[in-house]
Amino acid sequence: MTSFFRPNIESMAGYVPGEQPKPGTPIIKLNTNENPYPPSPAAMAVLQTLDSEWLRRYPDPYANEFRQAVSEALNVPANWVIVGNGSDDVLNVIVRACGEGDRRVAYPMPTYVLYRTLAEIQPAKTVEIPYGEDFQLPIAELVAENAAITFIASPNSPSGHVVPTNDLRQLAAQLSGVLVVDEAYVDFADETALPLVQEFENVIVIRTLSKGYSLAGLRLGFGVAQPRLLEGLFKVKDSYNIDAIACLVGSAAMRDQAYKNACAEKVKVSRAQLALELKQLGFRVWDSQTNFLLVQPPMGDAETIYLTLKEQGILVRYFKQPGLSDKLRITVGTDEQNQKLIQLLFAHFGF
Amino acid sequence: MTSFFRPNIESMAGYVPGEQPKPGTPIIKLNTNENPYPPSPAAMAVLQTLDSEWLRRYPDPYANEFRQAVSEALNVPANWVIVGNGSDDVLNVIVRACGEGDRRVAYPMPTYVLYRTLAEIQPAKTVEIPYGEDFQLPIAELVAENAAITFIASPNSPSGHVVPTNDLRQLAAQLSGVLVVDEAYVDFADETALPLVQEFENVIVIRTLSKGYSLAGLRLGFGVAQPRLLEGLFKVKDSYNIDAIACLVGSAAMRDQAYKNACAEKVKVSRAQLALELKQLGFRVWDSQTNFLLVQPPMGDAETIYLTLKEQGILVRYFKQPGLSDKLRITVGTDEQNQKLIQLLFAHFGF
Repeated sequence: MTSFFRPNIESMAGYVPGEQPKPGTPIIKLNTNENPYPPSPAAMAVLQTLDSEWLRRYPDPYANEFRQAVSEALNVPANWVIVGNGSDDVLNVIVRACGEGDRRVAYPMPTYVLYRTLAEIQPAKTVEIPYGEDFQLPIAELVAENAAITFIASPNSPSGHVVPTNDLRQLAAQLSGVLVVDEAYVDFADETALPLVQEFENVIVIRTLSKGYSLAGLRLGFGVAQPRLLEGLFKVKDSYNIDAIACLVGSAAMRDQAYKNACAEKVKVSRAQLALELKQLGFRVWDSQTNFLLVQPPMGDAETIYLTLKEQGILVRYFKQPGLSDKLRITVGTDEQNQKLIQLLFAHFGF
Repeated sequence: MTSFFRPNIESMAGYVPGEQPKPGTPIIKLNTNENPYPPSPAAMAVLQTLDSEWLRRYPDPYANEFRQAVSEALNVPANWVIVGNGSDDVLNVIVRACGEGDRRVAYPMPTYVLYRTLAEIQPAKTVEIPYGEDFQLPIAELVAENAAITFIASPNSPSGHVVPTNDLRQLAAQLSGVLVVDEAYVDFADETALPLVQEFENVIVIRTLSKGYSLAGLRLGFGVAQPRLLEGLFKVKDSYNIDAIACLVGSAAMRDQAYKNACAEKVKVSRAQLALELKQLGFRVWDSQTNFLLVQPPMGDAETIYLTLKEQGILVRYFKQPGLSDKLRITVGTDEQNQKLIQLLFAHFGF
């Protein structure tokens, strides 16, 4: 054996996770799209009442308590839900169940980089189709590819746009492979593709509690699809992927839709205000249905702005890749955080 | 596309997880080797003090707080540790990084069934070499196979025996692939293979907090290996596989070695007592360095005994497979639970 590792793993670049300074670090963190508001008090209260018996014993392999909460909140059958250790876990299971070699993985670009990473690990061939300048979904090209898995993030990162449900419907109807609609940011959007799950056996809609529910640290996400599609995914999912605490805390958060919606409304108001102020400074700002903004500075180098902001205690996201290297992705923070950002941009760059 | 799924997934039988009745169910649960004692009070106390900021934000991708606790408890460098969402997650990452097709997965039988499941999902060919009646490690056969991955559970389930470190050393020295020593039950044993990690670049030792630390519901496990082996595994591991709560609770549990050791000592005393009483009833009882016993009833059918005990409120483990279908695997409970088991066996079967 020439290497411990499979050839595709040996030749992969190691993934470098984003910057995650510890809680307590004096930094304004606008780089990984966390919700600026804390999780539901009802969710936090669960931690105070947790009996040690829940930790001593193995958790429920199906996280049925949480599936029931999802069922009630979204009005879908509980057995149409598969729960993951973060939505990334569900994406991972989909690639392992459906993709390999010529069973290809297709997605429009730019989008969430994990789709490519998961395909490289499997490995499955990737088909990357560029979005146009207006972020219109390249339906014809994706249909022509008819990949085993087609990933569409909607709302998309880092662009912030929503793919119209009718476009996704057209796509679903013409694909024979699986269409994954990744709705990580849907809680900040005006539209969801969830009804497509009723209409199509090949559609799975993915959700996370990391953004809208302010529970990125809990690792909890899920997919909604018809049982035939879930059947294969359950063969691949680790039996005990959801810990007992996440199941209970996440259930309480899911049952507190009013709190989640109120936080999302605040974020949407702040998003509009931040977009306005950045435009007033001369930035190009893309329309966003998420809790972040993709922006292009009026002058100067995006990487320099990123580095200067970091020095000054504000982390934003910079992507050193074609089409994005002249832009920044900025998470919408609290109004106070956003004001500090605007002030720094004004003070240091004279925008 | 004829199926949503890859051919190996399509043809796999769906895994049926073990029986996990909810906490509070009036049942004595001696079927999945949970520790009968609660987790460390220091670990539970963490839940009372957890700031919501830890849940709002993404967790540390490396779970460095926990790696540091492992480093101190086991006297290994922190960067020799990879942390998993349960040790099953680490086993999964190893198979995905190292195994596929003719890069085979070998293990002696009977052993932990997950090794086969993970190989089937990948897929990688499996080589299953039967243990002899005395559970002597088939070193020559495993060396002759020289698989990409060789899994040895030590102590082994369901047999309960420890593989002598010198046998593992001989094996490691002659393999060019990865030797995985799965020490899930090591906290109840007299011997560990951890020193082999210092000696061999191809050895990884796997540990879990599910058994010795009474934290099966938390999902936390880890592997210890030299950095060259970990490098490839980190490429496959999900970035945020460890939630913030598990990292903090697990760190506190790891730092409370005295509590864990005291519970393990109690289990070992109860194990000896339970083995003695079962032998007095006429059972054959295999020597165990774990928190369970493999036993063979003196008469009657093991499956009937399993079903009768279940009806009477005691769950034990029955494996309907060659070499095991005449035996039961019984988790060592509290002395009170063990007594109830003995009484039931006496009352219903007149052993």
